[in-house]
Amino acid sequence: MSARPDTAVAHIAFAELQALLQRIFIRHGTSEAVACALAFNCASAQRDGAHSHGVFRIPGYVSTLASGWVDGKAVPEVTDIASGYLRVDAKGGFAQPALAAARELLVEKARSAGIAVLAIHNSHHFAALWPDVEPFADEGLVALSVVNSMTCVVPHGARQPLFGTNPIAFAAPCAGTDPIVFDMATSAMAHGDVQIAARKGEQLPDGIGVDSQGEPTRDPQKILDGGALLPFGGHKGSALSMMVELLAAALTGGNFSWEFDWSQHPGAKTPWTGQLIIVIDPSKAEGGRFAERSYELVRQMQSVGLQRMPGERRYRERELSARQGVTLTVQELEQLQSMA
Amino acid sequence: MSARPDTAVAHIAFAELQALLQRIFIRHGTSEAVACALAFNCASAQRDGAHSHGVFRIPGYVSTLASGWVDGKAVPEVTDIASGYLRVDAKGGFAQPALAAARELLVEKARSAGIAVLAIHNSHHFAALWPDVEPFADEGLVALSVVNSMTCVVPHGARQPLFGTNPIAFAAPCAGTDPIVFDMATSAMAHGDVQIAARKGEQLPDGIGVDSQGEPTRDPQKILDGGALLPFGGHKGSALSMMVELLAAALTGGNFSWEFDWSQHPGAKTPWTGQLIIVIDPSKAEGGRFAERSYELVRQMQSVGLQRMPGERRYRERELSARQGVTLTVQELEQLQSMA
Repeated sequence: MSARPDTAVAHIAFAELQALLQRIFIRHGTSEAVACALAFNCASAQRDGAHSHGVFRIPGYVSTLASGWVDGKAVPEVTDIASGYLRVDAKGGFAQPALAAARELLVEKARSAGIAVLAIHNSHHFAALWPDVEPFADEGLVALSVVNSMTCVVPHGARQPLFGTNPIAFAAPCAGTDPIVFDMATSAMAHGDVQIAARKGEQLPDGIGVDSQGEPTRDPQKILDGGALLPFGGHKGSALSMMVELLAAALTGGNFSWEFDWSQHPGAKTPWTGQLIIVIDPSKAEGGRFAERSYELVRQMQSVGLQRMPGERRYRERELSARQGVTLTVQELEQLQSMA
Repeated sequence: MSARPDTAVAHIAFAELQALLQRIFIRHGTSEAVACALAFNCASAQRDGAHSHGVFRIPGYVSTLASGWVDGKAVPEVTDIASGYLRVDAKGGFAQPALAAARELLVEKARSAGIAVLAIHNSHHFAALWPDVEPFADEGLVALSVVNSMTCVVPHGARQPLFGTNPIAFAAPCAGTDPIVFDMATSAMAHGDVQIAARKGEQLPDGIGVDSQGEPTRDPQKILDGGALLPFGGHKGSALSMMVELLAAALTGGNFSWEFDWSQHPGAKTPWTGQLIIVIDPSKAEGGRFAERSYELVRQMQSVGLQRMPGERRYRERELSARQGVTLTVQELEQLQSMA
C-alpha cells in the first residue's frame, strides 16, 4: 500500500514533457525525426486535456515498437502526382512524420491550386487527429482529415464489427481568436475513452457498444473483451465511417481497417492503414473574408446560447497548462521517466 | 367525397414526367436551361422513391417563383480561380443550373489537378443533394458536397435554432455495380420528411425536434409551427452541421442559414445560401484500383450481415420505375397537369 494516492498530480513544462517523450521514442527504436513528430503530438494532447491520446498512449507505442510491427526509423517517400495531389508512402512507419515530410509542399499546392489533397498509405496512426489539422488553420487554411483504424465498429444494420473508429477532423481559421477545430470518432465513443472507462471501472451510457455475443452492454471491459463499438448517430454515423474507409484506405492505397494481421507481433497496437488530408485556401473564396465569416458564425452560435464551442475545452486546458505546466499523475510521470 | 381513394397511384414514364415538370417550370417563369436542370433533379428523386424531394416539392418551387424570391432565368457566372478552384455566382437563381454551367470544367480540373473544388454562392438549393454527386461517380470520380439551408436546427448545447438541415452527400464509383452514394441531413430528420409526417398525421421518434418552447416533442406539426429540429448524433452531428455552414456559406461567399430575409416574399420556400462540391480523381491513388477496392468494401459489409447498402433503396426503386414507370398518386399527377 502506497501512502501516495494514485491520483496525486505532477506538473511539467510542455517543452520538458516533449523532450522526455522524445527520449522515450528514441530509446525504443525511432529515428530523431519520428520521435520529434510523435512527441509533439502526444505532448500536445496531454497539454490540451485530451488524455485518451496523451501519455496514456506511450506504453502502446513502446510495445508496438518492441514487437517489430512498425518501422520507427522509416523514411517517408513523397511523390508529387499533380498540381493538387500528393502521395506519401509512409514505408510502414508512423503517419505523423509522413505528414511532416509532405507538409510544406501540400501548403504550397493548396495556395496555388486553391485545394490540394495528401494521400498517405502504408502508415500507422495511433494519435489524436486534431494536431494534424489545427496547424493548417493557424496558417489561414481550412483542413479536413480522415484516418481509418482497426475493426471494432459494427456497421449499422450489420451483425459483426468491420469498421475502425475512423475519426474525422476539421480545422478552420477564425478572425481574432483560436481556430475552429473538431476531431470526432465516427464510433459512438473513441476507443481510448472506452479503455479509460474500463481502467476506472466506470459504466458507459447506452448505445455505445455490444459484448462478444452482439448484445448491447454498458460495461467497457465487455466491449474490449471481444465486443465491439457502435457507430455514433445510427445509419448516418455508419455511412460516414464507411466514407472514411473509402477515403483513408481505398483512395490512398492503404489497408482497410480489417485487412492487416498483427497476430505475429504480440504487443502491436497501432493500426496499419492510410490517412487523407484535404487542404483548401479560403483566400480564393468570393469576398475573401473567410476568417471574419467564421468569427460571425461563432458569435451567432454564442447568441443562441451555446456555452462551449467544439474544441474550446482543449484551448482552456492549453491555457491552464501554459500557466501551471502540463498535468499528469505522479505515477504516469515516474513511469515515463523509467522508460526514457 | 371522392369515390377514388387519395392513395390511388398512377405510373408515368420517366421522360414523360421530366417533360411535364419542365413545362411547369417554364410556365412559372424559368428559362429552358433552368427548367431542364430542375425537372431532371425532381423527376430523379420521384423515380428513386425519395419522395420528400420528388413532385412533393413542385408547389414550393411554383410559389417561390411567383413570390419573386428566386430568379428563374438567372444565368450563372463561372470564374476560373485556380487550377483546382472554380467559383460560380448563381446570380440569385437555383444551384443546379450553376453546377451544370461549371460541371465540365470542374471534371477537367479534377482529372488534371487530382482534386478540384466548386464554390457556388448566391444560389437556391431546394432539392435532394445526391443527384448533384452521383453523376461524378458514374464518371469514375469521388465527389463530396455540402449545402446549407435555413435556420431550423438547434446546435447541440444551445437553446434556439440556428443551423439549417445542412446535408452532406458523397458518391464513389464501385467496380461492376452502382456507385456508393449517400445523402444525409445533419439534422435528426430531413425537413421534407417532417412535412410528410405532419401531412400524414404521424408521430415522430424521440430526439428529432422541439416545440416553440424548446421542449422535446414527437408531433411533427409542432416542430413546423415555430419549433425546431435537433442535429443527428448529439454534439458530433452538430459539429458537422457547423462545418457545413463554414464550407457551404463562409467558403463560397454565400449566406449562412440565418442570414436571408424572405419576409417580403410570401410563398418563398427556397433557402438562399451556397454550395460546395469537392471532386477527386481516384485514378491518382496509389495502385489506381479505387473502384475495385470500393467493391471489396461492399463485399465485406455484406459479409458482416449488412442487408442494405446506403443508397441501395434508391437503386431498387429506380429499377422498379424503369419497368413500370415512375409512381405517384393520381392526385399528384392531376395537380401537376393542372400546373403545366
